[in-house]
Amino acid sequence: MKLIRWGNAGKEKTGVVIDGKHYDTSGLGTDYNEAFFASEGLKRLAAYLAEQKDNLVEIPVGSRLGPPLARPSKIICIGLNYADHAAETNAPLPSEPVIFMKSTTALSGPYDPVIIPKGSVKTDWEVELAIVIGKTASYVTEGEALEYVAGYALHNDVSERAFQLERNGTWDKGKGCDTFAPVGPYLSTPDELNDINQLRLWLSVNGKMMQDGNTANFIFDIPHVISYVSQFMTLLPGDIISTGTPAGVGLGFNPPVYLKPGDVVELGIEGLGSSRQEVKEWERTQFYY
Amino acid sequence: MKLIRWGNAGKEKTGVVIDGKHYDTSGLGTDYNEAFFASEGLKRLAAYLAEQKDNLVEIPVGSRLGPPLARPSKIICIGLNYADHAAETNAPLPSEPVIFMKSTTALSGPYDPVIIPKGSVKTDWEVELAIVIGKTASYVTEGEALEYVAGYALHNDVSERAFQLERNGTWDKGKGCDTFAPVGPYLSTPDELNDINQLRLWLSVNGKMMQDGNTANFIFDIPHVISYVSQFMTLLPGDIISTGTPAGVGLGFNPPVYLKPGDVVELGIEGLGSSRQEVKEWERTQFYY
Repeated sequence: MKLIRWGNAGKEKTGVVIDGKHYDTSGLGTDYNEAFFASEGLKRLAAYLAEQKDNLVEIPVGSRLGPPLARPSKIICIGLNYADHAAETNAPLPSEPVIFMKSTTALSGPYDPVIIPKGSVKTDWEVELAIVIGKTASYVTEGEALEYVAGYALHNDVSERAFQLERNGTWDKGKGCDTFAPVGPYLSTPDELNDINQLRLWLSVNGKMMQDGNTANFIFDIPHVISYVSQFMTLLPGDIISTGTPAGVGLGFNPPVYLKPGDVVELGIEGLGSSRQEVKEWERTQFYY
Repeated sequence: MKLIRWGNAGKEKTGVVIDGKHYDTSGLGTDYNEAFFASEGLKRLAAYLAEQKDNLVEIPVGSRLGPPLARPSKIICIGLNYADHAAETNAPLPSEPVIFMKSTTALSGPYDPVIIPKGSVKTDWEVELAIVIGKTASYVTEGEALEYVAGYALHNDVSERAFQLERNGTWDKGKGCDTFAPVGPYLSTPDELNDINQLRLWLSVNGKMMQDGNTANFIFDIPHVISYVSQFMTLLPGDIISTGTPAGVGLGFNPPVYLKPGDVVELGIEGLGSSRQEVKEWERTQFYY
């Protein structure tokens, strides 16, 4: 199944993608949130779709897509998980996964604008494969890790490099600004994908290809990452783990290249669709919160 | 007002402390969560208490106290915010606040045990004053910052120093283990406190005083901290900002001293009560999640 959420920010309804068409599933009566994933919601959704297959209604033309799941308890990110990206940022290859956290208020829809924060001059892009956790995970082994996955989605781990690296704190300071986590277009259940470790992922800015990698080049693969994070904190249903970005971020250019108002970022992952964000200047009125 | 939550973990009911007695307020019909703080819940609670003042019922003797607010969208911590603590950890005085994040799954009650994570040998304590945000805060000025405060609470920012400092990631890895954020006993509204910048805070281990500081020694005071964090991410009602710890953590001793099963940690802040955690070894059956 491919899950979507649609409608105005903060008031999204649920839906699914079938054969490229977007259908409403709000009759199911639950958002795609922690309680949904925790209570076999995916099975209930599958049953609902089987039962309603002749009655499904397409969502209104022009509807905004929101993130394909409700705000999770946390967004964990893995840093430097592709060797080529570690090299371009002059970071040594990690001996074990680097973890940082993204404020969940950063979550936004796949076609929502990316807002350059006040005072920012180094807003950067990062195409990433995001894992969505399906059930509570604490100290899980690599062997059992994939049983804890609800699905996967495309994520732009937008980053402010000065906030992240030059402002005297951990990376979190440059990762959690509003609109810095466009996720979607959809959340794909694992059965929809062939080999999660063989997916091309790419990102362009104003039509120019900047990142073009493959999850085959993960330093730490998905089972390892899930097992590893679960040693340090309990993962709840609906939580997101974003698995790192391949080479080609703005910080890696000489001189670095950063986003400016009017730029258009497009990104995609094989099997997980594509998204598009226009970059805008901060204005009080644009805020979601 | 002094807000408490009581009952079994994950199923807490609400209450208040009046003249040292614990009363049930579950008749109010809402948890102390994001929606409560966002919708003038404190005013509704005050009206409820005025109306019910002759009918309030004490909570059952022996009831567990949970954290005094429901799981927030985020727990932001300020690192190295007392000069004596920066010195003891051999860190330079920060030129601007250090920010890191604590997984919200770490939240626990003030008398719940602290569980030493699997593989941990450096579990440490940190008494801290926690700010609870009362309304959505984005780019707020220092002058208006205190208008965004719902209240304050005692917090033990439990930390695994090897996970935090030696495991190749940001500090988040050693801050978010389950039970690493005992908060409470109560959430105090600002009117209950005299001068938030003149509060003694202390922590003992097995009866031996380890930390004995005063919020007068903040490097960055509360209005500065709220304003600062709100430049990097939107703070939601119920979010926690923990303001850093004074000198006397285990890492600061020579050689360092860390917690072991059977240890008893007690801590307190003038006006915000005291808490007590027994340290226990990890066992699968002890987990909240």
